[in-house]
This record gives sequence, C-alpha cells and structure tokens, in this order.
Amino acid sequence: MNLKVVTGNPDKAKEVEEFFNGKVRVGHVKLDLPEIKDNDVGNIARVKAKAAYDAVKEPLIVDDTGFYISSLNGFPGAYAAFVLDTIGMEGILRLMENQENRCAYFETAIAYADEDGVLIFRGRVEGSITTGPRGSEGFGYDPIFEVSGKTFAEIPLKDKSAVSHRGRALEAFGEWYLKKQ
Amino acid sequence: MNLKVVTGNPDKAKEVEEFFNGKVRVGHVKLDLPEIKDNDVGNIARVKAKAAYDAVKEPLIVDDTGFYISSLNGFPGAYAAFVLDTIGMEGILRLMENQENRCAYFETAIAYADEDGVLIFRGRVEGSITTGPRGSEGFGYDPIFEVSGKTFAEIPLKDKSAVSHRGRALEAFGEWYLKKQ
Repeated sequence: MNLKVVTGNPDKAKEVEEFFNGKVRVGHVKLDLPEIKDNDVGNIARVKAKAAYDAVKEPLIVDDTGFYISSLNGFPGAYAAFVLDTIGMEGILRLMENQENRCAYFETAIAYADEDGVLIFRGRVEGSITTGPRGSEGFGYDPIFEVSGKTFAEIPLKDKSAVSHRGRALEAFGEWYLKKQ
Repeated sequence: MNLKVVTGNPDKAKEVEEFFNGKVRVGHVKLDLPEIKDNDVGNIARVKAKAAYDAVKEPLIVDDTGFYISSLNGFPGAYAAFVLDTIGMEGILRLMENQENRCAYFETAIAYADEDGVLIFRGRVEGSITTGPRGSEGFGYDPIFEVSGKTFAEIPLKDKSAVSHRGRALEAFGEWYLKKQ
C-alpha cells in the first residue's frame, strides 16, 4: 500500500520509510499547509491533514510537535518553533532560573487522513529542563531537555528515534496502520 | 450602510459603533474564526475575514493585535495572548532584565471583507517596556507598556482609544470606509 508523508522536510519522509522497512510504499509530498493557533498539536495536525487530503486525495500523514514546560503553564507548547526563533533556549533558561519544578515534555501528533476522515496518534517523552545546554546532536531544544541523565543532544541521532516523541508517535501510528491492511 | 463587526467581544463592536457615531449601522456577529500561526497580525486578520465573509456574506470587519519587543526579536508578537496566559507579564519582565533596548510596539490589523475581497488597515503604537508593572486600567500588557512617560494602564480607558493601536487602525479603516460610500 501507498502512504504519502506531507512535510517540508524530506528527512521526515525518510524516517517513515525506514520505519516501515519495505512493508509500505512511502512517498514524500511537499506542500505548504495552514497551521492554526492552538496549543494542542493534535488539533493542529488534524487541520493540516484535512487540508493536505483535500489537495492530495490519497492516504497521507502529517505531524506536529510541541514542547511543554510544567512550571511555565505549558509554554512554549505548540509555539516552540516561534519561541526558539525569538527568545531562544537562552530565554527558556532565563525563565526557568530558580524554578524547582523543571518537568517538561515533548509531544508529537501524527494525523492520518484518508477518505474516511482523520485519526490522531500521539507520542510523548517526559523529561526535565537542564540548567544549561549540553550536547551537540539534534536540533531545537534538544540541548536543554534531559531524560535519564542525558540531554537529547547527547544521544546520537541514530538512537534517538527509539526514545523520541516522534518515534513513539510513529510506532503508535505504524502498529495501527499495518493491522488495518 | 451596514457593517458587521465579527468578534467574540461585544465591547469591540460597541467601540466601532461609537467611532462611526451614527454614520454607519454597526452590528455585532459572534463567530468562532480560525486563527493561523503567523507572526503578522495582518495575515491572521485576512484569513479570519475570509472565513467570516464565507459565513456571513455581508460587509464586515475582524481584527487581530500583536505585541512586538525589539530585543526579543518580535516576541511575543501575534502570540501575545498565549504568552500572557503562560509566562505572563512577569515572564516578559524577566526576559527583559538588563536589556538596554526596551523598544516595543503594539499593532492592530483590521481586515475589511466584502464581495470584492479583503483589505487590511493597520494601527501601531511605539513605546517601551517598563521595569515593573504600573497602573490598573486596561488589560493584557498595558501595565508594562509605556508611551510618553505613562503606561497604557495609567491612561483612563475612555482616553485610550485616542492613542491606542486599535484606535489608530480604526481611524485608518474609518477614513477609507466613509469615503467609499
């Protein structure tokens, strides 16, 4: 069967292809999709998937990821990319100075769309905010997000999908998708 | 002529009605509109206006406001409401500690939609971020935004529309709209 991955990032399509390991024919569609203002990545992915399906008319997935810090009431949440571009990791660390509760999580929502509608699959990783950046792998907030003593930027990229929010969302989706056939 | 103000806030419709002072018949339509993720309030208002016109099919306006801080690269921008709900004014002040450049501006975009399409009118007020909150009028970031020595929260509400971003956008729109007839 065929599955399109609708994203501006070809690496994401490649990750999905590797995940299915020949069991699914994965194609990459590059498309500019509308993103709504909402702090739930599932809602954002749902709207993107609907718009993508209207354009592509084939079974497809899109995804969206957020970064939620407990003591900042879920900030930066689904606006993680904008916040990184403006105040950066440095801004986050400043907001977290003297905060005892350093709990945070990443969440990815994958939205699958076909003629029957849209379904959402989520993956979440709980961790904590470090007091300073560590590591050089990955991207985004990886250097200040720590799980079991290591930041995401200290985990080699090839090992990251086994523990990451994206990897977990993909697993949840993949399990369902392979059974569906 | 008739103009609908599409907003969840009846006070905004009232403000427009008072502005036109009987020259225009102003109605209030309450409608949940899609908001896109974009740091330009004009783009956000444009998409809202299109969606509103599809539903209402009468000449209408919608608006959107952002708050842009220079030394934070435009943060919180069009995400001002979300940022206020999460890290609050306190978070902004913390990010601005020891910042020499304290320039900021509010910008409101009013989008007018009719059968011919959508037009955007903008109002902007430049000011600076205080080192602490002052005043009890208004709402949002008003207590930490200062223009000519006074914060927006130190200006009585009845005087505020004469100097505010919303007032200025409304003036730009109103001038055009009254000539259009």
